[in-house]
Amino acid sequence: MKLEEKTIKTEKIFEGRIITVQVDEVELPNGKTSTRELVKHPGAVAIIAMTDEERIVMVEQYRKPLEKEIVEIPAGKLEKGEDPAVCAKRELEEETGYGCNNLELLTSFYTSPGFADELVHIYLAKGLYKIEEGAGLDEDEFVNLMEVTLEEAEEMVKNQRIFDAKTIYAVQYLQLGKALKK
Amino acid sequence: MKLEEKTIKTEKIFEGRIITVQVDEVELPNGKTSTRELVKHPGAVAIIAMTDEERIVMVEQYRKPLEKEIVEIPAGKLEKGEDPAVCAKRELEEETGYGCNNLELLTSFYTSPGFADELVHIYLAKGLYKIEEGAGLDEDEFVNLMEVTLEEAEEMVKNQRIFDAKTIYAVQYLQLGKALKK
Repeated sequence: MKLEEKTIKTEKIFEGRIITVQVDEVELPNGKTSTRELVKHPGAVAIIAMTDEERIVMVEQYRKPLEKEIVEIPAGKLEKGEDPAVCAKRELEEETGYGCNNLELLTSFYTSPGFADELVHIYLAKGLYKIEEGAGLDEDEFVNLMEVTLEEAEEMVKNQRIFDAKTIYAVQYLQLGKALKK
Repeated sequence: MKLEEKTIKTEKIFEGRIITVQVDEVELPNGKTSTRELVKHPGAVAIIAMTDEERIVMVEQYRKPLEKEIVEIPAGKLEKGEDPAVCAKRELEEETGYGCNNLELLTSFYTSPGFADELVHIYLAKGLYKIEEGAGLDEDEFVNLMEVTLEEAEEMVKNQRIFDAKTIYAVQYLQLGKALKK
């Protein structure tokens, strides 16, 4: 079955600092029409940063949409036209004060394809070296830095201190690596 | 460091069929103010449905925000006040025509905590039995059903036909299960 939905009309609802919201009127595969509510997002990177002591660098951060703090792997939005690998190095440095000698793209995924076009690129960073203590945060960004073992991270998934897609993916990625090594 | 951001003012921007958009003015931990663009979403479920022949049930679907078709595990939005497990059984039945004898909650995660409150609950469904061929889809929902092996799913991650957080999590979950069994 052909699945494409053709755009009949686009109505821009909101243009913010970060997201843009629009409602598209679409023609469905059966010829009928419907509407789609869409959030446009610049995309992001997230970094699984492993210290030489096999600790995962995490940031604790207040997330206004959730009205609570959660613990996440370092991440940040892409600047316009920015290369994701460059963004990953920049965000790692800004949020954690770590530079890295090795950076590898693991995967990319759309976080919520039903309503948003946000694409997140997940990197693995190794060969970390300290530059400075998270001195480069945006002026509206406040984080607590942590370095945890895989076992500690697994515990944080269980008690929902780790509670978001990219970080739960990251923990599972490391569990898989450990299982395959055995 | 205290990280909480207190709401000074909330401005509702858009109330759609599915999402609500608002801009909050917040007081930052350092006393300064900033704005947060927030998307409210009812939450969702997604189902890793395994047939007795060890095939994963997938749906191919056009995703308007991406302007392309991708292959995903079955998923759907929570109705107001709906129990996620009830929703998972309903969505599995509606999208794939499968009922299930065993349903287990694997994890829950926020898809994009920086701007959205969407929480997705991931279930594992086994003991599948055929009810009918996806007859219960919403009237604006069109999908192609597929049943794939884990190896086929891994290939689809590589060539980006599988391209979203919950489905990439699902594939990695099954890889981890296989690695641990060895």
